[in-house]
Amino acid sequence: MVSRRAAALAAQPPAIAVAHFRAEAYPYDARLRPDGYINLGTAENRLVWDLLAPRLTARRPLTAADTHYGPLHGADAFRRELAGFLTGICRTEIDPDHLVVVSGVTGALDVIATVLCDPGEAIVVPAPYYSAFDVDLVGRSGARLLPAPVRADQDFQVTPDVLDEALAGARARGVTVRAVALASPGNPVGHVLPPRVLREIVAVAVRHGVDVVVDEIYANSVFGDNSGFVSALDPEVEAAGTGRVHVVWGFAKDFGLPGLKIGVLCSPDPQVCAAARALAYFAATSTDTQALLRDLLADREWVTGFLAESRRRLGRAYRSAAGLLTAAGLPFVPVEAGFSLWVDLRGWLTEPTFAAEDELWARILDEAHVNVLPGRLFASPDPGWFRLCFAAAPAVVSQGVDRIARLLGSLRASASASASVAEPEPAFASGSAPGRRYERAEGPR
Amino acid sequence: MVSRRAAALAAQPPAIAVAHFRAEAYPYDARLRPDGYINLGTAENRLVWDLLAPRLTARRPLTAADTHYGPLHGADAFRRELAGFLTGICRTEIDPDHLVVVSGVTGALDVIATVLCDPGEAIVVPAPYYSAFDVDLVGRSGARLLPAPVRADQDFQVTPDVLDEALAGARARGVTVRAVALASPGNPVGHVLPPRVLREIVAVAVRHGVDVVVDEIYANSVFGDNSGFVSALDPEVEAAGTGRVHVVWGFAKDFGLPGLKIGVLCSPDPQVCAAARALAYFAATSTDTQALLRDLLADREWVTGFLAESRRRLGRAYRSAAGLLTAAGLPFVPVEAGFSLWVDLRGWLTEPTFAAEDELWARILDEAHVNVLPGRLFASPDPGWFRLCFAAAPAVVSQGVDRIARLLGSLRASASASASVAEPEPAFASGSAPGRRYERAEGPR
Repeated sequence: MVSRRAAALAAQPPAIAVAHFRAEAYPYDARLRPDGYINLGTAENRLVWDLLAPRLTARRPLTAADTHYGPLHGADAFRRELAGFLTGICRTEIDPDHLVVVSGVTGALDVIATVLCDPGEAIVVPAPYYSAFDVDLVGRSGARLLPAPVRADQDFQVTPDVLDEALAGARARGVTVRAVALASPGNPVGHVLPPRVLREIVAVAVRHGVDVVVDEIYANSVFGDNSGFVSALDPEVEAAGTGRVHVVWGFAKDFGLPGLKIGVLCSPDPQVCAAARALAYFAATSTDTQALLRDLLADREWVTGFLAESRRRLGRAYRSAAGLLTAAGLPFVPVEAGFSLWVDLRGWLTEPTFAAEDELWARILDEAHVNVLPGRLFASPDPGWFRLCFAAAPAVVSQGVDRIARLLGSLRASASASASVAEPEPAFASGSAPGRRYERAEGPR
Repeated sequence: MVSRRAAALAAQPPAIAVAHFRAEAYPYDARLRPDGYINLGTAENRLVWDLLAPRLTARRPLTAADTHYGPLHGADAFRRELAGFLTGICRTEIDPDHLVVVSGVTGALDVIATVLCDPGEAIVVPAPYYSAFDVDLVGRSGARLLPAPVRADQDFQVTPDVLDEALAGARARGVTVRAVALASPGNPVGHVLPPRVLREIVAVAVRHGVDVVVDEIYANSVFGDNSGFVSALDPEVEAAGTGRVHVVWGFAKDFGLPGLKIGVLCSPDPQVCAAARALAYFAATSTDTQALLRDLLADREWVTGFLAESRRRLGRAYRSAAGLLTAAGLPFVPVEAGFSLWVDLRGWLTEPTFAAEDELWARILDEAHVNVLPGRLFASPDPGWFRLCFAAAPAVVSQGVDRIARLLGSLRASASASASVAEPEPAFASGSAPGRRYERAEGPR
């Protein structure tokens, strides 16, 4: 028999993961599986393997010490390199002793939520928010999320006001809030928050007596021309040195290495760090992989070149995908960072509800065989938005947008010929890819 | 501010880890630090690096897919290799879908405790037990341990009776017990449990309606001549196929790779597996390291040779350490497996209490600079026993036993000359290692 809480957790698998594995089980291949799934749902940077491969496949100068028990919150030498790297990003001296390395940013978010909240206590998050926050910040910690909806007509920009309102509202209802959590750069909407806004957000949180958790996993994935990334730990933001700002970062996005599961929590609060170290014991990372990344970070010149090239490629992929969407008549929110576009399919809903959004999602996945994620999974305040990831091969993104556009076109067509009962053509249908093949698809349904 | 439960966890760092890092911060070196710590407290296999190095430092045939998101409870290909390997150990077909890979055996124990127990529910463990059970099975799960003391005058052998008694006693007191947990081969006392005893233990547990968790992390570290290891999943044991036996294993001991933090839970119960997979999400392991170990396991011939040689070296180290203890007049329990000896220092306690045991421990650590762990940390039912790990370089073990013997000799001497107030000589004192150096020791006190 399984414990109540474990059963509850198992009953709610992260939606992103489920869609991801369904798509990956039968992936698109122009020749072999033309009817396979196009995975534009998973925020993976698939543009940089050629740059990484020589480093990752090379001989590894491991020593016996690299394989023995080490500090379970990250080896000293690894945390020193990480601190040096983060010092460059955050433009403030990062102390290696303020760093706790754990199993991915998932682990880092779980750790900080568990450190800040007892079960039932709340974390305010501007919505839409990164879908996995629902599991990462909640699943083991027992904390709960209070979404603070931002406005579609303000391009989903996070403002201090919405947080102030949510915090005041929670207090009025007698809810104990321990933290505000947000992603910066944003996800699913890749805005880069200006230092002034970050500063005001920190001020609002401090005024309400809560901590601030900032997920900066896309810190080095800013491709916009006008604005650079500014960390929440930057002196421009944290001039007040509240000690209440905790940042998480990892190698999944900026380095395109999500499988390596190396996340880090950076906190200036010694009590938070001590508690986080105790929790890291349960989600310790491989010293083998730490050694790999330690040596990678030590080569500063390589890192600088790699990140610059990655940003160039992301920018190119973004502009290309944006062009395809525009050409197809699909609106989206222009952004400066991240791997995804927030696409406005409100015009294709049968009604302005999340049920209709789910219905459209199912058609895109089942009929067009494209994995994009619906806004509901990101606690979108407004039905009809979808997250589309563009950091994949141009041909794949193009095929995916094309399939979606065809499906949406056929929906419009069948809506105008409303008496029609004929099933719409598969969106990607072409001479070489008969719709029948769907029935043989191996992906889990 | 830190949550109550995180503060509680941080307040109880695992004693083994604390002693380990103290000893490792200023390690013994015959030339450089003759007064440095001899670490015989940490159960690490330091005898096999020469065999591992060529594999671990070689080029790695990683592909992009090896670094992307994979199943968070272990990549399919890795679990297939693991299943093949465990099938050999357990002498029963292991299904890759019954395996959940997580961050070390620590993670696997945390996961199974969380899956089986809601907070406050209990796990019965024969005592003495592996010290870190107190954290691994308890720290995040909120379960509690009920020690079932085994008897010193029966060589600390685990018997079904002591478990039956503990389970019946718990029921009488209204305590909800969900599982029995034990290490086999044993730790701190490296007995190999015969299949008959394992079978009876499973029968007792099933009769009481609880599951059985068996930590088989030393499965391939059996060096005794008379008895081979038999897994709790072996058909000889689990002929009844109760589905209530869950086994954990990892690369830390048998492969001498504790830093790699790869543990695995093997359970035939689909509900347990589903819940464990949900928890593995928070303690997922590096696909980089999974790929390394996948390729290692795939080379069956190498694995067989490596494990055989490791067992030979362990046996040699055991016999050598046992010889040193015997020569020094220090009694111990003869065992057949593991990395440690259970040494009887009851004769050197000032009184038969755990306070006196702690006092002796402190002297061994502070004066002799030897890290061995006191029985109290293993919930020993009887004060005066210490765990001494022998899987290190012979010169180091010999130096450690020598220092302990000298300290104990000086204690005896000062006890017989009871009027003496002179400080005893440092146990390792020699011309080249003045006792004064202790004051400059860099290890955390």
